[in-house]
Amino acid sequence: MSAYASLSGHFDRIAAMSNAIGILQWDSDAMMPTGAAGARAESMALLRVLQHEMAVDPRLGDWLAEAEGDADLTDWERANLREIRRVWSVQTALPADLVAASSKAVSACEMAWRQARAESDFPSLLPYLAEVLKLQREAGVAKGERLGLGVYDALLNDYEPGGRAQKIDALFDDLAAFLPGFTEEALAAQARRPAPAPLEGPFPVEAQRRLGTRIMTALGYDFSRGRLDVSTHPFCGGADNDVRITTRYDETDFSKALMGVIHETGHALYEQGRPAAYMGQPVGQARGMSVHESQSLLMEMQACRSPQFLAYAAPVMREAFGASGPDWEAEALWRRYTRIERGFIRVDADEVTYPAHVILRYRLEKALIADAMPLAELPMAWNAGMKDLLGIIPPNDALGCLQDIHWPSGGWGYFPTYTLGAMTAAQLFDAACRAEPDALPGIARGDFAPLVGWLRTNIYEQGSRYETDELLTRATGRPLDASVFKAHLARRYLPAG
Amino acid sequence: MSAYASLSGHFDRIAAMSNAIGILQWDSDAMMPTGAAGARAESMALLRVLQHEMAVDPRLGDWLAEAEGDADLTDWERANLREIRRVWSVQTALPADLVAASSKAVSACEMAWRQARAESDFPSLLPYLAEVLKLQREAGVAKGERLGLGVYDALLNDYEPGGRAQKIDALFDDLAAFLPGFTEEALAAQARRPAPAPLEGPFPVEAQRRLGTRIMTALGYDFSRGRLDVSTHPFCGGADNDVRITTRYDETDFSKALMGVIHETGHALYEQGRPAAYMGQPVGQARGMSVHESQSLLMEMQACRSPQFLAYAAPVMREAFGASGPDWEAEALWRRYTRIERGFIRVDADEVTYPAHVILRYRLEKALIADAMPLAELPMAWNAGMKDLLGIIPPNDALGCLQDIHWPSGGWGYFPTYTLGAMTAAQLFDAACRAEPDALPGIARGDFAPLVGWLRTNIYEQGSRYETDELLTRATGRPLDASVFKAHLARRYLPAG
Repeated sequence: MSAYASLSGHFDRIAAMSNAIGILQWDSDAMMPTGAAGARAESMALLRVLQHEMAVDPRLGDWLAEAEGDADLTDWERANLREIRRVWSVQTALPADLVAASSKAVSACEMAWRQARAESDFPSLLPYLAEVLKLQREAGVAKGERLGLGVYDALLNDYEPGGRAQKIDALFDDLAAFLPGFTEEALAAQARRPAPAPLEGPFPVEAQRRLGTRIMTALGYDFSRGRLDVSTHPFCGGADNDVRITTRYDETDFSKALMGVIHETGHALYEQGRPAAYMGQPVGQARGMSVHESQSLLMEMQACRSPQFLAYAAPVMREAFGASGPDWEAEALWRRYTRIERGFIRVDADEVTYPAHVILRYRLEKALIADAMPLAELPMAWNAGMKDLLGIIPPNDALGCLQDIHWPSGGWGYFPTYTLGAMTAAQLFDAACRAEPDALPGIARGDFAPLVGWLRTNIYEQGSRYETDELLTRATGRPLDASVFKAHLARRYLPAG
Repeated sequence: MSAYASLSGHFDRIAAMSNAIGILQWDSDAMMPTGAAGARAESMALLRVLQHEMAVDPRLGDWLAEAEGDADLTDWERANLREIRRVWSVQTALPADLVAASSKAVSACEMAWRQARAESDFPSLLPYLAEVLKLQREAGVAKGERLGLGVYDALLNDYEPGGRAQKIDALFDDLAAFLPGFTEEALAAQARRPAPAPLEGPFPVEAQRRLGTRIMTALGYDFSRGRLDVSTHPFCGGADNDVRITTRYDETDFSKALMGVIHETGHALYEQGRPAAYMGQPVGQARGMSVHESQSLLMEMQACRSPQFLAYAAPVMREAFGASGPDWEAEALWRRYTRIERGFIRVDADEVTYPAHVILRYRLEKALIADAMPLAELPMAWNAGMKDLLGIIPPNDALGCLQDIHWPSGGWGYFPTYTLGAMTAAQLFDAACRAEPDALPGIARGDFAPLVGWLRTNIYEQGSRYETDELLTRATGRPLDASVFKAHLARRYLPAG
């Protein structure tokens, strides 16, 4: 057997293990009775240890070296080797005692965070978070040495392979200069229109579920390879060819679940559309978190808050809930789905104010990882950043620097992918609409095939064949910049002319 | 660490793996979209290989030998060692190539069986079934040599540890002599009453689900450690402290789902009630299939087809479906739930005719394993046995020897546990009602605590501490015999006096 075939077979087995873990994780979040938590934790820990052992199998290094000298490989296979080396370098970069210490520190910090957030008590979190930060920094150093990267870039690489803080700085500085003034202007324009009253409910769960299922089907989601269920925190998960999304229903407001379902369907279409021939291989995986987030935001923000979508969806919504009246006309619904508001909480933010939340976190985590700022000063720096970027100051840390689980759970380097994703979504949607003139008119008819067909060819089926920059350049003609995103916001939120 | 502690830790890890497999199996049957079948098969195969590797870990033999010489162990720990040795002996008895050949033959035979049953074409199944039978015989020989058992007893041992064909012969001969005449008499008694017309539906799925949930709760099922879902073939599965049952709903007839739910709840109560301190250890497992089946049949047949249960359940059913009238009175419902009928299909049989189906299969599989009968003669022998035991002859093999998947799927030695379970259920229920005078009156009030409390102490919490005979002797004063089962049938199905 060739070295490449050995590698490929090994990664198919790792995929079989990852798929098992993926379904058990979905079950833990969507199905598992509370009393099973202890037994489930044992099972998950065991499978994760076995998965890690497979990922650092000592034969991999030799196979890799030999396969990389194989002249008979296809482009896809070469790209697969590049991705396998990337995964393997990261997995073998960390000493086992650092992994164990990190896992322990994260568990303790997540518990402390739940309490600290409930009581808005940052000082009680400080020692736990300091430990997590210290170990993240060490991990960044270890991975950075292996990969030839700076500490922050090494952390970012886990979520955004090939990503560089230097490039993100430029993109985010551009946005940060643009957004405060733009937000003022957009809010002023909005203030000249009456605010819509809430739609009259209740909206029964079953009717919401049917509506969500109908929209998912219209978007192109394949129910023979996935499911829609309920969980406290909506997500897209599961396994290869088994891409499951969740939502939660509020009977007084159906829009949250509907927009959440559309968002997760964007992620799911990407996962369902990955290249079948490389489904379990590293090159067959989604390109990174910014491209993944671009797919959810493309559906939620670009496609499904467009006037075209509401032209299609308004009668579907009226039918779903037996509703009628002027509030249920397409134009009124579109106005409703493009309302903006400055707020303290990132996950509640609209597309105009969201980037400010992300830029704040990105700048702070970069400074903290670089040890350029004492962790104790985080609340102060947070509030100052909120004032600069968004013009509001949280009344307490629960509504400020304690709101997100990312840092306590060791997810340093993740935050920028949200806004990179929003910008990527705008650039891709714009390119899709140019390349497929029927993309937007199709949406108005509930026909997403022109749009999704373009995404399938240009994004889904490419997996990790190219680095992110090249993927985007091939699809849109250039690497990521902020211009299309800014133009999108201006077109949607500023008065015409 | 002591040898016993090493063993115990090792079996906790095996349990963690079994629990993962159990949830994934549940998911495959109750949740998985069809398109995921391929990826799931890969995951299941990988986890089963890893589980098998753990079960035959070369350190186990030494640990066992050392632990068995340890004078400081408790009774439970000694019983655990006995069970560990039993499991280990079986797992290490089979050569790997026999396991692989068997697994391959079973897959092919199951496929051929689906086709053969659909077309009632036994000859097309014959070569596949012959191969499975040959390999089962070889497995029986290999396990028999290791365990010091005859070939059939070695196969039986997988489902009924400690079971012996010689004892089963005596029990089944007793029943086989009794049942044909008894069935005649019971049918004659039944014919003197008018047959009930079907209850007027439809019975909406959601109302059936709520009724099932209510009855499960009354029986003592713990929803914080389990779930009720839907699958094509109802089962009780899942994991430690996560005991999930399934049913299927027919909107024209709610009784099937209800009685099915009660049956699976009987299994689930046993699983939920296993000793918490040994949950993942061999000694903490259910005692065997006949005791397991006794728990489902005790609930379904003994407790919940009693007049007492219907006195409680009749108003609950009327409320569930907004029903009323003479057909919905407790007495009328009880008559309905104790109707009997001779039929060709085992899974549709009532408690009077069911044993005939089992005794037939038991006698045939014993003869086939002993090579005392050519496999090609199975259809003829089947029909002759049906005539002798039940007085009817199937018009074709689909309604005859092709109806069950057990033989094609390599489950030789399983069938007798169904009727051993029915007899055990009668003997245990009788003992429970004697020991707890409030057991039956409790059921009439919907209070199952007296009955289930006795079962918990005498069966559930005993796990595999005792061999089956001793468990039953401790609970009922004597080993299994047919007398209580026969008395139960006579009391229920023959006219009083």
